[in-house]
Amino acid sequence: MPTKPFGLAVKAVLRDEAGRSLLVRRSRANRDSVGAWEWPGGKCDPGEAFDSALRREVQEETGLLVEAVALAGATEFELPMVRVVLLCLETRILGGVPALSDEHDRFEWVPFREFARLDIPAHVQRFMLGFADRQAHGGAPALAEGP
Amino acid sequence: MPTKPFGLAVKAVLRDEAGRSLLVRRSRANRDSVGAWEWPGGKCDPGEAFDSALRREVQEETGLLVEAVALAGATEFELPMVRVVLLCLETRILGGVPALSDEHDRFEWVPFREFARLDIPAHVQRFMLGFADRQAHGGAPALAEGP
Repeated sequence: MPTKPFGLAVKAVLRDEAGRSLLVRRSRANRDSVGAWEWPGGKCDPGEAFDSALRREVQEETGLLVEAVALAGATEFELPMVRVVLLCLETRILGGVPALSDEHDRFEWVPFREFARLDIPAHVQRFMLGFADRQAHGGAPALAEGP
Repeated sequence: MPTKPFGLAVKAVLRDEAGRSLLVRRSRANRDSVGAWEWPGGKCDPGEAFDSALRREVQEETGLLVEAVALAGATEFELPMVRVVLLCLETRILGGVPALSDEHDRFEWVPFREFARLDIPAHVQRFMLGFADRQAHGGAPALAEGP
């Protein structure tokens, strides 16, 4: 039986001085999870390094110039044709002017304690809410350690 | 100030029917952590997909033909010239004949509860012992969720 291939994707955890996290809302241009909030990011292209993919995707989606600083967490989910390993990276802003692509229609700094009230894409919901809960309640420093 | 670049590395969590995990011992051919036990695996080459790197590294180091099945966990550590994001993948054996490279001098199936007694490379020790402890004590299924 052929195994479903793996893909690699990245998401940026960007924080402001108040400790809020930047989320973008999926627009009607998407096929799924329209209206759901997510960290900016996306798939790594074949052969593309994950930190390059993060810079590219965040710039495309938010207009911001960023760089990855550290691993924040990792999870996995299945799509019809691919199993995706998702790396979430603590990311800092180097410059740029906020500007959304057509994939998103809003841009907001959200306190972690409010994540639980948001519509979040189903395949990353448990992961994002667990992460936000640990941030809001002063858990361990962000470092992926599996289960 | 230039930022230290990121690299990506992979390790294979291989299990036998008794639930033990395959470890290999670092030989004197290594510059560091000689005698320490680790999961087989290594660095992704530039442009190489992580699941391909896993297959290649495990075959080079153990002679076994394998494929990645799922994300087991993720962590991060710093080396002098690079910050490494390490993906650990649940992996299954498809075939091959066990044969070590010169990087390792032993090959052993080890119960997770015995990991704490082993010499483990310092930069992954906390991660591997935490993982093994959750496995030995029937924690959550293996899926990286950050801290």
